[in-house]
Amino acid sequence: MAEILKGKDVIASMKERMLKQVEELQSHGVTPCLAIVRLGAKADDLAYEKGAVKRCEGLGIKCVVMEYDESISQKELEDEIRKLNEDTGIHGILVFRPLPKHIDENAIKYVISPDKDVDCFSPVNVAKVFEGDDNGFAPCTPEAVMEMLEHYGVDVSGKRVVVIGRSLVVGKPLSMLLLRKNATVTICHTKTRDLGGTARTADILIAAAGKARMITKEFVSPGQIVIDVGINMDKDGNLCGDVDYDNVEKTVAMITPVPGGVGTVTTSILAKHVLAAAWRLSGVMGS
Amino acid sequence: MAEILKGKDVIASMKERMLKQVEELQSHGVTPCLAIVRLGAKADDLAYEKGAVKRCEGLGIKCVVMEYDESISQKELEDEIRKLNEDTGIHGILVFRPLPKHIDENAIKYVISPDKDVDCFSPVNVAKVFEGDDNGFAPCTPEAVMEMLEHYGVDVSGKRVVVIGRSLVVGKPLSMLLLRKNATVTICHTKTRDLGGTARTADILIAAAGKARMITKEFVSPGQIVIDVGINMDKDGNLCGDVDYDNVEKTVAMITPVPGGVGTVTTSILAKHVLAAAWRLSGVMGS
Repeated sequence: MAEILKGKDVIASMKERMLKQVEELQSHGVTPCLAIVRLGAKADDLAYEKGAVKRCEGLGIKCVVMEYDESISQKELEDEIRKLNEDTGIHGILVFRPLPKHIDENAIKYVISPDKDVDCFSPVNVAKVFEGDDNGFAPCTPEAVMEMLEHYGVDVSGKRVVVIGRSLVVGKPLSMLLLRKNATVTICHTKTRDLGGTARTADILIAAAGKARMITKEFVSPGQIVIDVGINMDKDGNLCGDVDYDNVEKTVAMITPVPGGVGTVTTSILAKHVLAAAWRLSGVMGS
Repeated sequence: MAEILKGKDVIASMKERMLKQVEELQSHGVTPCLAIVRLGAKADDLAYEKGAVKRCEGLGIKCVVMEYDESISQKELEDEIRKLNEDTGIHGILVFRPLPKHIDENAIKYVISPDKDVDCFSPVNVAKVFEGDDNGFAPCTPEAVMEMLEHYGVDVSGKRVVVIGRSLVVGKPLSMLLLRKNATVTICHTKTRDLGGTARTADILIAAAGKARMITKEFVSPGQIVIDVGINMDKDGNLCGDVDYDNVEKTVAMITPVPGGVGTVTTSILAKHVLAAAWRLSGVMGS
């Protein structure tokens, strides 16, 4: 029986720290504020937004939802983001992606202020993650993985970590965050030969492939720590991870569940980023 | 006896292609031009400059060396780089790093135009390398490795590649370039446990640790391809790589020498980048 690494304990511990920070910011007259930029009303966006607003407001972080028609022009959207950049009452900006096809996302990413870019959209923050510069904002999901590992006392230094998935949202930035903490990182993907054999050599196995229950017991070995970043729907419409949990958890030492694992921590990371931005932008020195 | 992957054959083949490109640019009235920004006169910088100028001029690429006193102020240097950004006769800018301590390199990197940044100094290009966007400029050394592999018909797709070294100049960007070509990449470093064991599992082993002759026969296995990115001086003052060549070459299938290997190809990559910049900036469509 593996130890189950639940998200809720991580969230509770982060909440305790963040409530104090919000209190201190407020004592300096600063109310941390996140602007959420949403085009149209996609179900996925609305679901994430609901969770993010709830998490932030529960901490005393104000949320402003900027909803635009999906048909907004490139120029209008850029102008709106520039207004948010300049608004001193706003500390963080989250832009839901992907943007509609008529919008040049590649141009938008240069518009958002790197100082308010709490979800690593700007190339400035992308470069910082790659460079190992902690002054930027990493994407929320990979940072949630790091937060979970730290919370549960897993020191990655010198460990063999196998990351399955090379997306720009999870696999690649997570590899950089792990490298920054001195892990030996192997990045695997659809073209990897003998994926199972490689996965079994890992001390820590991270599944971020986006493929329901692909990690079966043939991919794991005793003593491993398995982190499941996948959020998929199986053919019966049930939420599940990239890991075939029931099949795997008997073998490994630690495992994150889905739901209730990494995914639940991401909005706490978002809140953490808004607070970090508020500290820096308001010039209040944190304790 | 391993096949020796020499730089000179790669250079010759690149030269043939590039001479045609220069000819075509010139037929459109464009003389490709590289500006080299050097502060002071460090021996390393001068040696690289000499090689770069020779390589470029041998191809018909003009070089302008901008030498400044080491005591130049931040503002003056920024102004000089801005002038080069605006000069339509200049297509590529190479700034020798590290810059003197009184200069804020972190600020300078945002000044150089990403379109002329032929050695991946700008965060815009750093982010593109990380994102796998081929429209940017990767650092010259990792791209030289990719060029060598391609020249010698080594397809990295699906292969296990172990990169020893995680610098921002070689290890990290090279890992991204390899990943882009579908290699399964493991990034190792000083904190990696059982480095030898990991290295021996590689199909392709890349030494970019900057430690003279550290890769001995205990790190390699038969059939491997070994790429040596190291350029070191041994205790007798001889140039050598990270690989203990004589000790290793009996075991492996292919190996790059030092000198005469990867290092010799970097200035050809620099020239290639200047040409790419000249195509784009002049609006001439390449054949």
